[in-house]
Amino acid sequence: MNPEQHQSSGIHLIADLHGIAPDQLTDPAALENLLRRSAVAAGASIIYSHFHTFGTGQGVTGVVLLAESHISIHTWPECGFAAADIFMCGGAQPERALEMIVSALRPASSGIRTIERGDGGKDRRPVG
Amino acid sequence: MNPEQHQSSGIHLIADLHGIAPDQLTDPAALENLLRRSAVAAGASIIYSHFHTFGTGQGVTGVVLLAESHISIHTWPECGFAAADIFMCGGAQPERALEMIVSALRPASSGIRTIERGDGGKDRRPVG
Repeated sequence: MNPEQHQSSGIHLIADLHGIAPDQLTDPAALENLLRRSAVAAGASIIYSHFHTFGTGQGVTGVVLLAESHISIHTWPECGFAAADIFMCGGAQPERALEMIVSALRPASSGIRTIERGDGGKDRRPVG
Repeated sequence: MNPEQHQSSGIHLIADLHGIAPDQLTDPAALENLLRRSAVAAGASIIYSHFHTFGTGQGVTGVVLLAESHISIHTWPECGFAAADIFMCGGAQPERALEMIVSALRPASSGIRTIERGDGGKDRRPVG
């Protein structure tokens, strides 16, 4: 991988997305396609992806592993809720991936948290 | 899945682990085994796991998908650094998984953040 991908500091976006139409949250192939496209939009390099359905009309859980870390999503169509997280180290732009996911799923409301990971972290404590 | 696994609220632990012996961070099979055991210790149900090495002696990236959400790890042996996250909904106990990971990898210092996900989230805002 290139040096930018190899950096251990990065941004982790934690996105709780509420009020989504249930039929947007049940198709593992569509969600896998969305998350893979969002990774590309962020400038990230996809290593692998796997998506699982809990059954017809039920929730989906899936992840896209990246050279820069990962994007995951877990959905609860019965609640109109999706929990996504986007963790990218180096020069990728996780906010672009989040924009694409929000644009596709169209939640009524969201709670987004932005966390600095790695050597950028400010709350390091000794262990033991 | 059972009703407890089906809850959309949960805890997401974000763990930056520093000062780990590099040879603890390069073996994808050992890390997969550790994360799978930590999922079981937390009382979670494993759906799938996939671990990738960037090359001999280099970092590993991997994820365990759970009925309750996921555990991921990304490692940088050249920095002695691992970025883990443990997201579990329902009745599982993510802190037990983190304890097992920390006990095995023995970081010199760590930065741990605990995030409420789902309907427990308090910072919901309208979108659009």
